[in-house]
Amino acid sequence: MTLLQGQTATRSLTITALSVRTFAELTGDYNPLHFDEAFAASTKFGRLVAQGGLTTGLLHALVAMDMPGPGTVFLSQNWKFTAPVYIGDTISARAEVRSVHPTKPVCQLQIEVRRGDGEVVLEGEAWCYTFRGGAPTTQR
Amino acid sequence: MTLLQGQTATRSLTITALSVRTFAELTGDYNPLHFDEAFAASTKFGRLVAQGGLTTGLLHALVAMDMPGPGTVFLSQNWKFTAPVYIGDTISARAEVRSVHPTKPVCQLQIEVRRGDGEVVLEGEAWCYTFRGGAPTTQR
Repeated sequence: MTLLQGQTATRSLTITALSVRTFAELTGDYNPLHFDEAFAASTKFGRLVAQGGLTTGLLHALVAMDMPGPGTVFLSQNWKFTAPVYIGDTISARAEVRSVHPTKPVCQLQIEVRRGDGEVVLEGEAWCYTFRGGAPTTQR
Repeated sequence: MTLLQGQTATRSLTITALSVRTFAELTGDYNPLHFDEAFAASTKFGRLVAQGGLTTGLLHALVAMDMPGPGTVFLSQNWKFTAPVYIGDTISARAEVRSVHPTKPVCQLQIEVRRGDGEVVLEGEAWCYTFRGGAPTTQR
């Protein structure tokens, strides 16, 4: 199966207080924006937000599980965080193939992640490489 | 306290099989590169690797805990993954302040992450915003 320019994939994730706690334990990111309600309330966010690493974690899952699929790693990531993700939000990622390398299992994805209310929380692009033996790539 | 151009911070993280399992449960990234020994062995990586989201997770911890410090969020991330991180590796992140906004609590960081053997696994740059009430910024 060939990866085609314009092809898209989507994947969603619900962010819970347990997600935020687990990500902190995993990485060491105990930012008060994620745990200190008074601190978060004193910022323009107004309440506790999730780590950006959970939002990008959804993108790691999307490229590995959906498109390009198993065997895929990121070569690069280039994106902006445009709005906060709150605890309890369900976020939805959408990737679209912008270009496919003519001879290598390499593609460029345009990426966008939105909250349930439609607000874009992340936008940008990334390059991926898919190892053979994994998911469909242009090499197979 | 003022954030100064050229200021640096470092932070390390040891990646275990449990880290990889937990990240998968958290995000849905069950790429066979992380779990299927035969698949990983068939690629140039040669053995199981960690999710890139664990490497970038360390960077989320660094900006939130060390420099600029508590209250910091990423505005953008722009980096390349240059080599794999294997299960059992201890990775070390280094950030250096490239520029500090003259009037806003915004800075640009140059970022590099290395494995214990010195190989660079990630390099690039990011922009951060630090909410007041948090860590030292140029605004305080």
